Amino acid sequence: MDDAGLIEIAREVPAKSLKAPSTVSPQLRRSISGLAAAAAAGGGLPKGWTPGNAEEWKAIIAQMDAQALSVAPALAAMFPHTSQVRQIAGVTVRDIAPASQDPAKSDRLLVHFHGGGYALNGGEASTGEAVLGAHYSGMRVISVDYRMPPDHPFPAAVDDALSVWRALAQERPASAMGVFGTSAGGGLTLALALKLKDIGEAFPGALATGTPWTDLTGASDSYQVNAEVDGVFSNFDGFAAGMAAIYAGEAGVTHPLVSPIFGDFAGFPPTIFTTGTRDILLSDTVRAYRAMRAAGVTAQLEVHEAMSHAEYIYAFDSPESAVAFGDIARFFDEHLSD
Amino acid sequence: MDDAGLIEIAREVPAKSLKAPSTVSPQLRRSISGLAAAAAAGGGLPKGWTPGNAEEWKAIIAQMDAQALSVAPALAAMFPHTSQVRQIAGVTVRDIAPASQDPAKSDRLLVHFHGGGYALNGGEASTGEAVLGAHYSGMRVISVDYRMPPDHPFPAAVDDALSVWRALAQERPASAMGVFGTSAGGGLTLALALKLKDIGEAFPGALATGTPWTDLTGASDSYQVNAEVDGVFSNFDGFAAGMAAIYAGEAGVTHPLVSPIFGDFAGFPPTIFTTGTRDILLSDTVRAYRAMRAAGVTAQLEVHEAMSHAEYIYAFDSPESAVAFGDIARFFDEHLSD
Repeated sequence: MDDAGLIEIAREVPAKSLKAPSTVSPQLRRSISGLAAAAAAGGGLPKGWTPGNAEEWKAIIAQMDAQALSVAPALAAMFPHTSQVRQIAGVTVRDIAPASQDPAKSDRLLVHFHGGGYALNGGEASTGEAVLGAHYSGMRVISVDYRMPPDHPFPAAVDDALSVWRALAQERPASAMGVFGTSAGGGLTLALALKLKDIGEAFPGALATGTPWTDLTGASDSYQVNAEVDGVFSNFDGFAAGMAAIYAGEAGVTHPLVSPIFGDFAGFPPTIFTTGTRDILLSDTVRAYRAMRAAGVTAQLEVHEAMSHAEYIYAFDSPESAVAFGDIARFFDEHLSD
Repeated sequence: MDDAGLIEIAREVPAKSLKAPSTVSPQLRRSISGLAAAAAAGGGLPKGWTPGNAEEWKAIIAQMDAQALSVAPALAAMFPHTSQVRQIAGVTVRDIAPASQDPAKSDRLLVHFHGGGYALNGGEASTGEAVLGAHYSGMRVISVDYRMPPDHPFPAAVDDALSVWRALAQERPASAMGVFGTSAGGGLTLALALKLKDIGEAFPGALATGTPWTDLTGASDSYQVNAEVDGVFSNFDGFAAGMAAIYAGEAGVTHPLVSPIFGDFAGFPPTIFTTGTRDILLSDTVRAYRAMRAAGVTAQLEVHEAMSHAEYIYAFDSPESAVAFGDIARFFDEHLSD
């Protein structure tokens, strides 16, 4: 059956006023209400707007990174750790050791790619999720500060990811390392694995992709359904589509290392996916999960009530965040091997 | 932390026009467009309306059951089977043998509870999902035509479920039987297991709950987010809330055998959950899955792109439906033991 004769009828959904539900923790309710308040105050980017040139990109990136950094002290106070800036294979990384480090896991290592649409959250702003991953897993984390647009479009991020990975894989078995990341970092996690498969090098022992940006064409259904519902990432059109375009550059958004949904996941290592019911990337997540299952990969899908995109990072004081990172830590415990 | 000082701010979501996405099969796209067309034609129940007395309930139930039955010939043609009406322990059941029956699984049996808000889809209208489950599993299915309101409110459905279960469990090990159902049938699947736990009787080998109605209070976030998005079950307020009230009766909607989310799932058998990103019971499903995981139960969550409530039953010609039932069949294969 094809689309011949299919008459497209759209579903008309009326305007809504969404309350923070009673079905989540007070901490998550507070986060949901806070995001709604920010939206109501009109503090975000103008709807549909995207920077017009490199200077505008750099200005807005600097502004948004400063905003992301503002929560770092509270996060550091709650999740004690040391963080050391290093270079590995010419790439800047942050080497994070949690106070909770488990000596029994000293042969293991996690590699982290930050989110931010392949444009935001570079530098010090990159490590919030890495600290949480280190804390909950009890493992050391190497968080990769990969190069980004506007100066460095694709494939710079994938090249940097691969360079760091290869250097680390010379010092320990690939199977003793896990790779994780959220949003663009989840997409880059999948892109690195696709690249390793292409060049015939060993996979990590397991992957954890949080609400991964797997389809930069914007085709996923949740871009419609959860537009303006998601409190963190409200719309694809405009700024996010702009980030997709400047990241993809000449390769285009359908390149499988840009949009991993167009890649072949057969043979992939075990992978855990994390998302939420309000997540604008719910469909990007679910589609990649389904593609892995169809390819026979061991995959696990975790969905959290009323959570927006990556909110398990931002609502780091919530029990739901602890559950999300606890599931990821347990998944690495089960699937990494020294 | 409690809610002290929490200022509730609602998220304002503008009206939307949702297209059938390009990310699903032509068959599912056709189903999504068909549901949107039905909504556009205003063919559903008046918004917010619920019957006022038993006579009105019976009239609308008869009308909706006739509508549900209209697809039975097409489904039967595609999934050949025999169906025999029997009585087990005084309860009407349909004993369904698929043409695909696998002799290697003849010691196993599936028990099915139909959906329909504990009010609809009785009699011949009850067996669509049972036929699909039988076909994809290659197993015989006993589909229970449990008593329903307005004449028979809770606990009649649970009593009937238990009576049939006990009779079947006298003839074979409980572990050789799986129980499955969608919507109210998914809720009843969980309620039966809670009841078996209460009375100290053996669990089924595994459970499959499709988009289960686990919280009849209507608190789940997806009742807001996916209201008028879901093409099958558009709103809780009105008719669905009415079904919840006439089913619960004097026990009330917070009774754990009415709303299993208020029960304790510790010790439950392995359970697979199926839902979709447009499902109005996405949150009812996710919350029950999370509660099982928190209780240490082996649980698996399957979410399908752009699917509305129970659409894997209605879009039975779609490859997505085959995947959903294939996952359920495989789950029973893995977890039942003769």
